[in-house]
Amino acid sequence: MPYELYYWPGLQGRGEFVRLALEDAGAAYVDVARARPADGFGVPALMRLLENSAEPHIPFAPPCLKDGDLIVSHVANILFYLGPKLGLAPADEPLRIVANGLQLTIADLVAEVHDTHHPLDSSLYYEDQKEAAQARAAAFRTHRLPKFLGYFERVLAQNPAGPACSIGATTSYVDLSLFQAIEGLYYAFPRAMAGFETRWPRLAGLRDAVRTRPRLARYLASSRRIAFNETGIFRHYPELDQAAAR
Amino acid sequence: MPYELYYWPGLQGRGEFVRLALEDAGAAYVDVARARPADGFGVPALMRLLENSAEPHIPFAPPCLKDGDLIVSHVANILFYLGPKLGLAPADEPLRIVANGLQLTIADLVAEVHDTHHPLDSSLYYEDQKEAAQARAAAFRTHRLPKFLGYFERVLAQNPAGPACSIGATTSYVDLSLFQAIEGLYYAFPRAMAGFETRWPRLAGLRDAVRTRPRLARYLASSRRIAFNETGIFRHYPELDQAAAR
Repeated sequence: MPYELYYWPGLQGRGEFVRLALEDAGAAYVDVARARPADGFGVPALMRLLENSAEPHIPFAPPCLKDGDLIVSHVANILFYLGPKLGLAPADEPLRIVANGLQLTIADLVAEVHDTHHPLDSSLYYEDQKEAAQARAAAFRTHRLPKFLGYFERVLAQNPAGPACSIGATTSYVDLSLFQAIEGLYYAFPRAMAGFETRWPRLAGLRDAVRTRPRLARYLASSRRIAFNETGIFRHYPELDQAAAR
Repeated sequence: MPYELYYWPGLQGRGEFVRLALEDAGAAYVDVARARPADGFGVPALMRLLENSAEPHIPFAPPCLKDGDLIVSHVANILFYLGPKLGLAPADEPLRIVANGLQLTIADLVAEVHDTHHPLDSSLYYEDQKEAAQARAAAFRTHRLPKFLGYFERVLAQNPAGPACSIGATTSYVDLSLFQAIEGLYYAFPRAMAGFETRWPRLAGLRDAVRTRPRLARYLASSRRIAFNETGIFRHYPELDQAAAR
Protein backbone atom coordinates (compact mmCIF):
# COMPACT_ATOMS: atom_id res chain seq x y z
CA MET A 1 0.00 0.00 0.00
CA PRO A 2 1.48 3.40 -0.92
CA TYR A 3 2.19 5.96 1.77
CA GLU A 4 -0.30 8.83 1.91
CA LEU A 5 1.08 12.33 2.38
CA TYR A 6 -1.43 14.88 3.64
CA TYR A 7 -0.49 18.48 2.97
CA TRP A 8 -2.04 21.62 1.52
CA PRO A 9 -1.91 21.82 -2.29
CA GLY A 10 -0.33 24.68 -4.23
CA LEU A 11 2.76 25.24 -2.11
CA GLN A 12 5.95 23.40 -1.19
CA GLY A 13 5.68 24.33 2.47
CA ARG A 14 6.64 21.87 5.16
CA GLY A 15 5.33 19.00 3.04
CA GLU A 16 8.23 19.39 0.65
CA PHE A 17 10.75 18.06 3.19
CA VAL A 18 8.78 14.80 3.23
CA ARG A 19 8.31 14.75 -0.56
CA LEU A 20 12.06 15.00 -1.11
CA ALA A 21 12.71 11.90 0.98
CA LEU A 22 9.92 9.90 -0.69
CA GLU A 23 11.05 10.99 -4.16
CA ASP A 24 14.74 10.39 -3.52
CA ALA A 25 13.95 6.85 -2.38
CA GLY A 26 11.55 6.20 -5.26
CA ALA A 27 8.84 5.28 -2.73
CA ALA A 28 5.23 4.82 -3.79
CA TYR A 29 3.05 7.56 -2.29
CA VAL A 30 -0.12 9.51 -2.89
CA ASP A 31 0.08 13.28 -2.43
CA VAL A 32 -3.48 13.22 -1.12
CA ALA A 33 -4.67 16.81 -1.44
CA ARG A 34 -3.27 17.02 -4.99
CA ALA A 35 -4.89 13.77 -6.09
CA ARG A 36 -8.38 13.43 -7.56
CA PRO A 37 -11.47 13.86 -5.33
CA ALA A 38 -13.15 11.36 -7.68
CA ASP A 39 -10.70 8.78 -6.28
CA GLY A 40 -11.49 9.74 -2.68
CA PHE A 41 -8.58 12.18 -2.42
CA GLY A 42 -8.24 15.96 -2.77
CA VAL A 43 -8.58 18.62 -0.08
CA PRO A 44 -11.82 17.05 1.27
CA ALA A 45 -9.78 13.96 2.21
CA LEU A 46 -7.29 16.17 4.05
CA MET A 47 -10.11 17.92 5.92
CA ARG A 48 -11.68 14.59 6.86
CA LEU A 49 -8.40 13.52 8.41
CA LEU A 50 -8.00 16.75 10.39
CA GLU A 51 -11.60 16.80 11.65
CA ASN A 52 -12.09 13.10 12.30
CA SER A 53 -13.74 12.66 15.68
CA ALA A 54 -13.37 8.87 15.73
CA GLU A 55 -9.66 8.67 14.96
CA PRO A 56 -7.61 7.71 18.05
CA HIS A 57 -4.48 9.69 17.14
CA ILE A 58 -5.24 13.02 15.58
CA PRO A 59 -2.77 15.49 14.06
CA PHE A 60 -2.64 19.16 15.02
CA ALA A 61 -1.79 20.30 11.50
CA PRO A 62 -0.44 19.04 8.16
CA PRO A 63 1.86 17.59 7.01
CA CYS A 64 0.93 14.09 8.14
CA LEU A 65 1.90 10.74 6.73
CA LYS A 66 -0.49 7.83 6.80
CA ASP A 67 1.06 4.37 6.71
CA GLY A 68 -1.78 1.88 7.01
CA ASP A 69 -3.61 2.86 10.21
CA LEU A 70 -0.76 4.90 11.64
CA ILE A 71 -0.92 8.68 11.28
CA VAL A 72 2.44 10.38 11.83
CA SER A 73 2.57 14.15 12.20
CA HIS A 74 5.33 16.80 12.19
CA VAL A 75 8.03 16.80 9.54
CA ALA A 76 10.86 15.66 11.82
CA ASN A 77 8.73 12.84 13.21
CA ILE A 78 7.64 11.71 9.74
CA LEU A 79 11.25 11.65 8.56
CA PHE A 80 12.43 9.86 11.71
CA TYR A 81 9.78 7.23 11.01
CA LEU A 82 10.38 6.99 7.26
CA GLY A 83 14.15 7.39 7.24
CA PRO A 84 15.12 3.77 7.99
CA LYS A 85 12.38 2.40 5.69
CA LEU A 86 13.64 4.57 2.82
CA GLY A 87 17.34 3.90 3.40
CA LEU A 88 17.85 7.54 4.34
CA ALA A 89 18.78 7.20 8.01
CA PRO A 90 21.95 6.06 9.80
CA ALA A 91 22.02 2.35 10.54
CA ASP A 92 23.13 2.98 14.10
CA GLU A 93 20.33 3.70 16.64
CA PRO A 94 22.16 6.46 18.58
CA LEU A 95 23.02 8.19 15.31
CA ARG A 96 19.32 8.19 14.43
CA ILE A 97 18.71 10.18 17.58
CA VAL A 98 21.45 12.61 16.56
CA ALA A 99 19.89 12.88 13.09
CA ASN A 100 16.56 13.71 14.71
CA GLY A 101 18.20 16.50 16.70
CA LEU A 102 19.65 17.97 13.49
CA GLN A 103 16.27 17.76 11.77
CA LEU A 104 14.62 19.56 14.69
CA THR A 105 17.13 22.39 14.30
CA ILE A 106 16.11 22.60 10.64
CA ALA A 107 12.47 22.72 11.81
CA ASP A 108 13.32 25.69 14.04
CA LEU A 109 15.03 27.44 11.14
CA VAL A 110 11.96 26.88 8.97
CA ALA A 111 9.64 28.26 11.68
CA GLU A 112 11.83 31.35 11.96
CA VAL A 113 11.75 31.86 8.20
CA HIS A 114 7.94 31.66 8.34
CA ASP A 115 7.87 34.31 11.04
CA THR A 116 9.92 36.77 8.96
CA HIS A 117 6.75 37.35 6.92
CA HIS A 118 4.28 36.60 9.72
CA PRO A 119 5.83 38.01 12.89
CA LEU A 120 2.61 39.05 14.61
CA ASP A 121 -0.33 36.91 13.56
CA SER A 122 -0.37 33.86 11.30
CA SER A 123 -4.08 34.42 10.64
CA LEU A 124 -3.47 37.84 9.04
CA TYR A 125 -1.98 38.60 5.63
CA TYR A 126 1.66 39.59 5.28
CA GLU A 127 0.48 42.97 4.03
CA ASP A 128 -1.14 43.61 7.43
CA GLN A 129 2.15 43.14 9.33
CA LYS A 130 4.74 44.49 6.89
CA GLU A 131 6.41 46.89 9.29
CA ALA A 132 6.98 44.26 11.97
CA ALA A 133 8.09 41.86 9.23
CA GLN A 134 10.88 44.23 8.24
CA ALA A 135 12.19 44.30 11.81
CA ARG A 136 11.93 40.54 12.21
CA ALA A 137 13.50 39.85 8.82
CA ALA A 138 16.42 42.17 9.62
CA ALA A 139 17.08 40.30 12.87
CA PHE A 140 16.81 37.00 11.02
CA ARG A 141 19.25 38.03 8.29
CA THR A 142 21.72 39.59 10.72
CA HIS A 143 21.73 37.14 13.62
CA ARG A 144 19.80 33.97 13.00
CA LEU A 145 20.64 33.06 9.39
CA PRO A 146 24.43 33.12 9.99
CA LYS A 147 23.95 31.33 13.31
CA PHE A 148 22.01 28.47 11.72
CA LEU A 149 24.23 28.17 8.63
CA GLY A 150 27.40 28.49 10.69
CA TYR A 151 26.14 25.71 12.93
CA PHE A 152 25.44 23.33 10.05
CA GLU A 153 28.82 24.16 8.50
CA ARG A 154 30.39 23.11 11.83
CA VAL A 155 28.28 19.93 11.82
CA LEU A 156 29.76 19.02 8.43
CA ALA A 157 33.29 20.03 9.44
CA GLN A 158 33.14 17.96 12.65
CA ASN A 159 31.53 14.87 11.14
CA PRO A 160 34.13 12.15 11.77
CA ALA A 161 33.05 10.48 8.50
CA GLY A 162 33.83 13.63 6.52
CA PRO A 163 31.98 16.75 5.37
CA ALA A 164 30.02 15.17 2.52
CA CYS A 165 27.10 14.32 4.84
CA SER A 166 25.73 15.80 8.02
CA ILE A 167 25.76 12.49 9.82
CA GLY A 168 27.63 9.28 9.10
CA ALA A 169 29.08 8.45 5.70
CA THR A 170 25.89 8.15 3.65
CA THR A 171 23.24 10.65 2.61
CA SER A 172 20.33 10.90 5.05
CA TYR A 173 17.03 12.72 5.08
CA VAL A 174 18.81 15.46 7.05
CA ASP A 175 20.99 16.20 4.02
CA LEU A 176 17.93 16.36 1.75
CA SER A 177 16.29 18.79 4.18
CA LEU A 178 19.41 20.94 4.36
CA PHE A 179 19.36 21.13 0.55
CA GLN A 180 15.73 22.26 0.65
CA ALA A 181 16.38 24.84 3.38
CA ILE A 182 19.29 26.32 1.43
CA GLU A 183 17.27 26.43 -1.79
CA GLY A 184 14.46 28.16 0.10
CA LEU A 185 16.81 30.69 1.66
CA TYR A 186 18.25 31.50 -1.78
CA TYR A 187 14.73 32.03 -3.10
CA ALA A 188 13.57 34.20 -0.19
CA PHE A 189 16.75 36.15 0.55
CA PRO A 190 18.98 36.20 -2.55
CA ARG A 191 20.80 39.34 -1.42
CA ALA A 192 21.40 38.13 2.13
CA MET A 193 22.64 34.81 0.70
CA ALA A 194 25.29 36.46 -1.50
CA GLY A 195 28.62 35.04 -0.39
CA PHE A 196 27.04 31.82 0.88
CA GLU A 197 29.40 29.57 -1.08
CA THR A 198 32.57 31.17 0.18
CA ARG A 199 31.37 31.58 3.76
CA TRP A 200 29.90 28.09 4.14
CA PRO A 201 31.68 26.00 1.48
CA ARG A 202 30.84 22.59 2.94
CA LEU A 203 27.13 23.41 2.93
CA ALA A 204 27.44 24.57 -0.67
CA GLY A 205 29.09 21.27 -1.55
CA LEU A 206 26.34 19.30 0.16
CA ARG A 207 23.66 21.26 -1.69
CA ASP A 208 25.33 20.58 -5.03
CA ALA A 209 25.72 16.88 -4.25
CA VAL A 210 22.08 16.46 -3.22
CA ARG A 211 20.79 18.33 -6.27
CA THR A 212 22.44 15.88 -8.66
CA ARG A 213 21.19 12.68 -7.07
CA PRO A 214 19.51 10.99 -10.05
CA ARG A 215 16.00 10.41 -8.70
CA LEU A 216 15.98 13.76 -6.95
CA ALA A 217 17.16 15.59 -10.08
CA ARG A 218 14.33 13.97 -12.06
CA TYR A 219 11.83 15.02 -9.40
CA LEU A 220 13.09 18.60 -9.31
CA ALA A 221 12.66 18.82 -13.09
CA SER A 222 9.17 17.30 -13.02
CA SER A 223 5.75 18.90 -12.64
CA ARG A 224 5.44 17.26 -9.24
CA ARG A 225 7.91 19.85 -7.89
CA ILE A 226 5.82 22.92 -7.13
CA ALA A 227 7.75 26.16 -7.68
CA PHE A 228 8.58 28.34 -4.69
CA ASN A 229 5.85 30.97 -4.34
CA GLU A 230 4.42 33.54 -1.98
CA THR A 231 1.97 31.19 -0.29
CA GLY A 232 4.72 28.93 1.05
CA ILE A 233 7.18 29.22 3.92
CA PHE A 234 10.02 30.65 1.84
CA ARG A 235 8.62 33.80 0.23
CA HIS A 236 10.49 36.35 -1.80
CA TYR A 237 9.46 39.82 -0.67
CA PRO A 238 12.29 42.11 -1.86
CA GLU A 239 11.65 44.56 0.97
CA LEU A 240 12.55 41.83 3.51
CA ASP A 241 15.89 41.08 1.86
CA GLN A 242 19.14 42.99 2.05
CA ALA A 243 22.81 42.13 1.63
CA ALA A 244 24.75 41.55 4.85
CA ALA A 245 26.96 44.41 6.01
CA ARG A 246 30.63 43.73 5.19
CA MET B 1 26.61 6.97 35.48
CA PRO B 2 24.03 9.73 36.04
CA TYR B 3 22.53 11.54 33.07
CA GLU B 4 23.84 15.06 32.55
CA LEU B 5 21.32 17.77 31.71
CA TYR B 6 22.81 20.88 30.10
CA TYR B 7 20.64 23.97 30.38
CA TRP B 8 20.96 27.60 31.44
CA PRO B 9 20.70 28.17 35.19
CA GLY B 10 18.16 30.49 36.82
CA LEU B 11 15.13 29.69 34.73
CA GLN B 12 12.80 26.77 34.09
CA GLY B 13 12.79 27.29 30.35
CA ARG B 14 12.81 24.36 27.99
CA GLY B 15 15.02 22.39 30.38
CA GLU B 16 12.10 22.01 32.77
CA PHE B 17 10.28 19.60 30.45
CA VAL B 18 13.27 17.27 30.75
CA ARG B 19 13.65 17.80 34.51
CA LEU B 20 10.03 16.79 35.11
CA ALA B 21 10.57 13.44 33.40
CA LEU B 22 13.84 12.76 35.22
CA GLU B 23 12.34 13.76 38.57
CA ASP B 24 9.10 11.83 38.08
CA ALA B 25 11.12 8.70 37.33
CA GLY B 26 13.52 9.26 40.22
CA ALA B 27 16.43 9.08 37.76
CA ALA B 28 19.95 10.05 38.79
CA TYR B 29 21.05 13.19 36.94
CA VAL B 30 23.33 16.19 37.24
CA ASP B 31 21.82 19.57 36.36
CA VAL B 32 25.19 20.60 34.99
CA ALA B 33 25.05 24.39 34.86
CA ARG B 34 23.59 24.51 38.38
CA ALA B 35 26.24 22.19 39.83
CA ARG B 36 29.59 23.29 41.25
CA PRO B 37 32.38 24.50 38.92
CA ALA B 38 34.76 23.03 41.49
CA ASP B 39 33.40 19.62 40.48
CA GLY B 40 33.87 20.37 36.77
CA PHE B 41 30.30 21.58 36.28
CA GLY B 42 28.65 25.02 36.20
CA VAL B 43 28.11 27.32 33.22
CA PRO B 44 31.71 26.81 31.99
CA ALA B 45 30.92 23.12 31.46
CA LEU B 46 27.84 24.09 29.43
CA MET B 47 29.89 26.50 27.31
CA ARG B 48 32.56 23.85 26.73
CA LEU B 49 29.89 21.52 25.37
CA LEU B 50 28.44 24.16 23.05
CA GLU B 51 31.79 25.33 21.71
CA ASN B 52 33.57 21.99 21.50
CA SER B 53 35.35 21.78 18.14
CA ALA B 54 36.33 18.11 18.55
CA GLU B 55 32.90 16.72 19.42
CA PRO B 56 31.41 14.74 16.50
CA HIS B 57 27.75 15.58 17.25
CA ILE B 58 27.27 19.13 18.39
CA PRO B 59 24.06 20.71 19.66
CA PHE B 60 22.66 23.96 18.29
CA ALA B 61 21.39 25.14 21.68
CA PRO B 62 20.51 23.85 25.16
CA PRO B 63 18.84 21.85 26.51
CA CYS B 64 20.97 18.78 25.78
CA LEU B 65 21.19 15.50 27.58
CA LYS B 66 24.46 13.64 27.81
CA ASP B 67 24.24 9.89 28.32
CA GLY B 68 27.76 8.54 28.24
CA ASP B 69 29.21 9.71 24.93
CA LEU B 70 25.85 10.44 23.32
CA ILE B 71 24.65 14.05 23.25
CA VAL B 72 20.94 14.39 22.58
CA SER B 73 19.50 17.81 21.79
CA HIS B 74 15.99 19.28 21.54
CA VAL B 75 13.39 18.65 24.23
CA ALA B 76 11.20 16.34 22.16
CA ASN B 77 14.21 14.30 21.07
CA ILE B 78 15.56 14.03 24.62
CA LEU B 79 12.17 12.85 25.87
CA PHE B 80 11.78 10.41 22.98
CA TYR B 81 15.16 8.97 23.91
CA LEU B 82 14.60 8.96 27.68
CA GLY B 83 10.92 8.02 27.75
CA PRO B 84 11.33 4.23 27.42
CA LYS B 85 14.31 4.19 29.80
CA LEU B 86 12.31 6.09 32.44
CA GLY B 87 9.09 4.10 32.02
CA LEU B 88 7.36 7.19 30.67
CA ALA B 89 6.67 6.13 27.08
CA PRO B 90 4.14 3.77 25.51
CA ALA B 91 5.40 0.19 25.21
CA ASP B 92 4.20 -0.02 21.62
CA GLU B 93 6.63 1.35 18.96
CA PRO B 94 4.01 3.04 16.74
CA LEU B 95 2.51 4.73 19.80
CA ARG B 96 5.95 6.12 20.61
CA ILE B 97 5.90 7.82 17.23
CA VAL B 98 2.45 9.23 18.02
CA ALA B 99 3.75 10.44 21.40
CA ASN B 100 6.62 12.19 19.63
CA GLY B 101 4.13 13.98 17.38
CA LEU B 102 2.19 15.20 20.42
CA GLN B 103 5.40 16.39 22.08
CA LEU B 104 6.36 18.31 18.93
CA THR B 105 3.01 20.09 19.04
CA ILE B 106 3.82 21.08 22.65
CA ALA B 107 7.21 22.34 21.39
CA ASP B 108 5.41 24.52 18.85
CA LEU B 109 3.12 25.89 21.56
CA VAL B 110 6.16 26.71 23.73
CA ALA B 111 7.89 28.48 20.82
CA GLU B 112 4.77 30.55 20.22
CA VAL B 113 4.59 31.50 23.91
CA HIS B 114 8.22 32.65 23.70
CA ASP B 115 7.41 34.80 20.72
CA THR B 116 4.58 36.62 22.55
CA HIS B 117 7.30 38.51 24.44
CA HIS B 118 9.94 38.35 21.69
CA PRO B 119 8.07 38.75 18.41
CA LEU B 120 10.75 40.66 16.51
CA ASP B 121 14.22 39.80 17.76
CA SER B 122 15.29 37.25 20.35
CA SER B 123 18.56 39.15 20.87
CA LEU B 124 16.75 42.30 22.08
CA TYR B 125 15.00 42.88 25.39
CA TYR B 126 11.26 42.56 25.70
CA GLU B 127 11.14 46.27 26.52
CA ASP B 128 12.50 47.02 23.05
CA GLN B 129 9.64 45.22 21.28
CA LYS B 130 6.67 45.84 23.60
CA GLU B 131 4.31 47.19 20.98
CA ALA B 132 4.76 44.25 18.64
CA ALA B 133 4.52 41.95 21.66
CA GLN B 134 1.04 43.27 22.42
CA ALA B 135 -0.12 42.47 18.90
CA ARG B 136 1.46 39.03 18.92
CA ALA B 137 0.15 38.22 22.41
CA ALA B 138 -3.39 39.26 21.41
CA ALA B 139 -3.27 36.92 18.41
CA PHE B 140 -1.90 34.17 20.63
CA ARG B 141 -4.59 34.57 23.27
CA THR B 142 -7.40 34.86 20.74
CA HIS B 143 -6.50 32.25 18.14
CA ARG B 144 -3.59 30.06 19.07
CA LEU B 145 -4.13 29.34 22.78
CA PRO B 146 -7.67 28.00 22.26
CA LYS B 147 -6.55 26.12 19.16
CA PHE B 148 -3.75 24.32 21.03
CA LEU B 149 -5.77 23.61 24.18
CA GLY B 150 -8.82 22.56 22.16
CA TYR B 151 -6.62 20.16 20.24
CA PHE B 152 -5.19 18.53 23.35
CA GLU B 153 -8.68 18.29 24.87
CA ARG B 154 -9.71 16.39 21.72
CA VAL B 155 -6.62 14.17 22.04
CA LEU B 156 -7.74 13.20 25.54
CA ALA B 157 -11.37 12.77 24.50
CA GLN B 158 -10.46 10.55 21.55
CA ASN B 159 -7.89 8.40 23.36
CA PRO B 160 -9.36 4.89 23.12
CA ALA B 161 -7.83 4.10 26.54
CA GLY B 162 -9.72 6.97 28.16
CA PRO B 163 -9.09 10.66 28.89
CA ALA B 164 -6.74 10.22 31.86
CA CYS B 165 -3.67 10.18 29.58
CA SER B 166 -2.86 11.68 26.22
CA ILE B 167 -1.67 8.37 24.83
CA GLY B 168 -2.32 4.83 25.97
CA ALA B 169 -3.46 3.93 29.47
CA THR B 170 -0.41 5.02 31.46
CA THR B 171 1.18 8.37 32.15
CA SER B 172 3.86 9.35 29.65
CA TYR B 173 6.32 12.20 29.32
CA VAL B 174 3.74 13.90 27.09
CA ASP B 175 1.36 14.18 30.07
CA LEU B 176 4.12 15.67 32.23
CA SER B 177 4.86 18.21 29.50
CA LEU B 178 1.18 19.09 29.14
CA PHE B 179 1.08 19.73 32.89
CA GLN B 180 4.09 22.04 32.59
CA ALA B 181 2.62 23.89 29.61
CA ILE B 182 -0.67 24.47 31.43
CA GLU B 183 1.13 25.67 34.58
CA GLY B 184 3.18 28.04 32.44
CA LEU B 185 0.12 29.38 30.63
CA TYR B 186 -1.57 30.04 33.99
CA TYR B 187 1.50 31.91 35.16
CA ALA B 188 1.89 34.00 32.00
CA PHE B 189 -1.75 34.59 31.11
CA PRO B 190 -3.94 34.23 34.24
CA ARG B 191 -6.72 36.36 32.79
CA ALA B 192 -6.78 34.62 29.43
CA MET B 193 -6.80 31.25 31.25
CA ALA B 194 -9.91 32.11 33.30
CA GLY B 195 -12.50 29.50 32.43
CA PHE B 196 -9.86 26.91 31.51
CA GLU B 197 -11.31 24.22 33.77
CA THR B 198 -14.83 24.45 32.39
CA ARG B 199 -13.77 24.85 28.77
CA TRP B 200 -11.15 22.07 28.76
CA PRO B 201 -12.15 19.81 31.68
CA ARG B 202 -10.13 16.78 30.61
CA LEU B 203 -6.95 18.83 30.44
CA ALA B 204 -7.71 20.23 33.89
CA GLY B 205 -8.12 16.68 35.18
CA LEU B 206 -4.82 15.62 33.65
CA ARG B 207 -3.02 18.61 35.20
CA ASP B 208 -4.43 17.76 38.64
CA ALA B 209 -3.48 14.10 38.30
CA VAL B 210 0.10 14.86 37.26
CA ARG B 211 0.59 17.42 40.03
CA THR B 212 -0.14 14.84 42.72
CA ARG B 213 2.19 12.11 41.49
CA PRO B 214 4.29 11.47 44.61
CA ARG B 215 7.81 12.03 43.25
CA LEU B 216 6.69 14.95 41.14
CA ALA B 217 4.87 16.59 44.04
CA ARG B 218 8.04 16.31 46.14
CA TYR B 219 10.07 17.85 43.33
CA LEU B 220 7.63 20.72 42.84
CA ALA B 221 7.87 21.52 46.58
CA SER B 222 11.68 21.33 46.60
CA SER B 223 14.31 23.98 45.98
CA ARG B 224 15.25 22.17 42.77
CA ARG B 225 12.06 23.54 41.19
CA ILE B 226 12.96 27.04 40.03
CA ALA B 227 10.00 29.43 40.26
CA PHE B 228 8.52 30.84 37.05
CA ASN B 229 10.15 34.18 36.34
CA GLU B 230 10.63 36.80 33.65
CA THR B 231 13.79 35.29 32.20
CA GLY B 232 12.03 32.05 31.21
CA ILE B 233 9.71 31.14 28.38
CA PHE B 234 6.50 31.71 30.32
CA ARG B 235 6.66 35.32 31.53
CA HIS B 236 3.98 37.27 33.29
CA TYR B 237 3.72 40.69 31.74
CA PRO B 238 0.26 41.98 32.73
CA GLU B 239 0.05 44.15 29.60
CA LEU B 240 0.23 41.00 27.43
CA ASP B 241 -2.65 39.32 29.23
CA GLN B 242 -6.37 39.94 28.90
CA ALA B 243 -9.50 37.90 29.48
CA ALA B 244 -11.03 36.31 26.39
CA ALA B 245 -14.09 38.06 24.95
CA ARG B 246 -17.29 36.23 25.91
